[in-house]
Amino acid sequence: MSLIVMKFGGTSVGDTDRIKNAAAKVAAEIKNGHKVAVVVSAMSGVTDQLITHCRAISPRFDAREHDAVVSTGEQVTAGLMAMALQQRGLNARSWQGWQLRLLTDSDHAKARIMDIEGDALRARLDDGETGVIAGFQGVTEDGRITTLGRGGSDTSAVALAVALKADRCDIYTDVPGVFTSDPRIVTAAQKMNRVSYEEMLELASLGAKVLQVRSVEMAMRYRMPVQVLSTFANEVGSELPGTLVIEGTKDMEKNTVTGIAHTSNEAKITLARLADKPGVAARVFSPLARAGISVDMIVQTASEDGQVTDITFTVAMGDWERALKVLEDEKANIGFEKILSEKNVTKISLVGIGMRSHAGVAALMFETLAAKGINIQVIETSEINTSVLIASEYTELALRALHSAYGLDAA
Amino acid sequence: MSLIVMKFGGTSVGDTDRIKNAAAKVAAEIKNGHKVAVVVSAMSGVTDQLITHCRAISPRFDAREHDAVVSTGEQVTAGLMAMALQQRGLNARSWQGWQLRLLTDSDHAKARIMDIEGDALRARLDDGETGVIAGFQGVTEDGRITTLGRGGSDTSAVALAVALKADRCDIYTDVPGVFTSDPRIVTAAQKMNRVSYEEMLELASLGAKVLQVRSVEMAMRYRMPVQVLSTFANEVGSELPGTLVIEGTKDMEKNTVTGIAHTSNEAKITLARLADKPGVAARVFSPLARAGISVDMIVQTASEDGQVTDITFTVAMGDWERALKVLEDEKANIGFEKILSEKNVTKISLVGIGMRSHAGVAALMFETLAAKGINIQVIETSEINTSVLIASEYTELALRALHSAYGLDAA
Repeated sequence: MSLIVMKFGGTSVGDTDRIKNAAAKVAAEIKNGHKVAVVVSAMSGVTDQLITHCRAISPRFDAREHDAVVSTGEQVTAGLMAMALQQRGLNARSWQGWQLRLLTDSDHAKARIMDIEGDALRARLDDGETGVIAGFQGVTEDGRITTLGRGGSDTSAVALAVALKADRCDIYTDVPGVFTSDPRIVTAAQKMNRVSYEEMLELASLGAKVLQVRSVEMAMRYRMPVQVLSTFANEVGSELPGTLVIEGTKDMEKNTVTGIAHTSNEAKITLARLADKPGVAARVFSPLARAGISVDMIVQTASEDGQVTDITFTVAMGDWERALKVLEDEKANIGFEKILSEKNVTKISLVGIGMRSHAGVAALMFETLAAKGINIQVIETSEINTSVLIASEYTELALRALHSAYGLDAA
Repeated sequence: MSLIVMKFGGTSVGDTDRIKNAAAKVAAEIKNGHKVAVVVSAMSGVTDQLITHCRAISPRFDAREHDAVVSTGEQVTAGLMAMALQQRGLNARSWQGWQLRLLTDSDHAKARIMDIEGDALRARLDDGETGVIAGFQGVTEDGRITTLGRGGSDTSAVALAVALKADRCDIYTDVPGVFTSDPRIVTAAQKMNRVSYEEMLELASLGAKVLQVRSVEMAMRYRMPVQVLSTFANEVGSELPGTLVIEGTKDMEKNTVTGIAHTSNEAKITLARLADKPGVAARVFSPLARAGISVDMIVQTASEDGQVTDITFTVAMGDWERALKVLEDEKANIGFEKILSEKNVTKISLVGIGMRSHAGVAALMFETLAAKGINIQVIETSEINTSVLIASEYTELALRALHSAYGLDAA
């Protein structure tokens, strides 16, 4: 008998019929002899509605009150799911963050989990009761409700699986698993049966929206097997129907490149002819951080004369104008000659373990893109990914060509 | 400096603009130098939507899960109201039932308040913070959320006022106060400035829907002054703008009859020629109670021969058919000759302290109705009310004639 945490996202519990459908999947796992703790998101659209109410009341709302309001979405689904399980003759009850207690820090609206006191829940699971846990929420030491930030229910589920020493954490979504590339663009993309934590972390960070990055980090830290599967298509109980995210092994994947991710809607900014001396990067990026602007790729080229250098980085399109303004305001302090910028660029990333140690992996990427006449604007590499920045209009062409070149296409 | 509990019902917080309007009333009381604890209902329509979800999941839902789901409505309003007060520069925070803690028994969906641990809230009120409390909800000793049943937010407010030793509990509604009769029917009806607990209790029980009966009982038990006033019309801080429900005094009202209530949608059932011996009433009403049917008026006439008697009682129209079926099933056990029944009857009730001790009060009622040709089907009296049952088609005529006969019409 295994203990499984099953997490259902917003579309999987989008209305009462879908909650009943998800309950059927839980019942099937229990019939298979497993103990189950269920983690649920808010019904799709509910959280956005609640945030709209908050904004209508006050443009600068209190994050503590925001959390008290927004956490109700998951509370509702948890109660309804418990009812749906009872309707199937199962013994079930709902648990809110404060009832568990799932303790977080007091960084409201983006709180981090500190501890889960799962003893009461574990005892009831052992007694044959199914627990339904409101995802996305926790409670501070002094009893205020917190939320974990967007997508936090994935993190709730993995953290609960770790706390309960579960055998597996199943994340039910509206896609059948993790693909070698975006299947909406690359029709030859294949569902991966297995992927390592490290690769999944890169894929999640690089735009594959199947799992929230924080949940993958936590699964990797505690070596918790995570399975991504569809609420709508996969059969319960069949052999690994989705994608299993587990510890990497040598024979796990024969390809060095396991997936190709992309992030669109980026903008590139280059500060040209900066003084090449200590502290210059801090003078560029600290003001951006203070303005709440996240920077993605950062590349600094070696200067020819040791006197001046260029720094190129990317920001989300939505932050582009604000970033330019911040940099212009800081021009005297930073000391650059001019700003060059380009909107509508896309980052294409190859993901795979041991990429640097395999000769020719990056070279094949550059050759493939060159053969299609696609100009590479920026290159960035790590042990596990090789990323290039290209004009967005070439996104589909580049993804398909690389997917084929690295032997990922379905037979 | 007074401590006031201000309670806002569903229409008073029906959307975010109305929440802002209610927040302005709270701010005005604080500006007047008062400490304020605010109790809020769910935004109108929200509770019904949540109940619809529960019913869609399961026709026989678990009351504990129902409470977890339905209590979110008040949680949302409490957070939004706290934000709205902060937006006005006030120090405010929301409190849910389990945060207070407002302890109830575990009779879910209709729980009764056992205790309110208001020390933390009181300390913060003394520090100048305004507390916004989610109405209608509490928590059991073992940490499950409960709700108090329909209209429970009034009861939350009065109970909190008692626990905090508040000076007054103001109930903001969508009407300007308590009227001598239903102003939609009796255009000459007047807003009462004051009414005693006892009279208010009768009026609330007899169909005046301004205050929930349980909240009036609690106010009477602890002698808590309650003021009913409109969120939309009354001026904050003016001299007693609504209706004050307080301890009765001799000079409080010169009329013996202070108000005329009515309850429509009743049905009358008569069991004819029952054996007139001990235990017969129990054999009639116990089966109805087991079937969850509430009985309103009960009148048993003295039998002529000491052998047989008739029992007449009223039930809500919605329970009429079921009640008849229960009685037919029990016919052998009860032992009656036949059932007579009539749908569409209305109870008209005169309310006033010391009614029995004033000669002629009831007589004037009977004369007034006779003069209009209205037949009285059943009469029931108590120290504080005199009620008659008439055909519903005469409701408006009877109310207006009695309102005028007892000198209640506006000048």
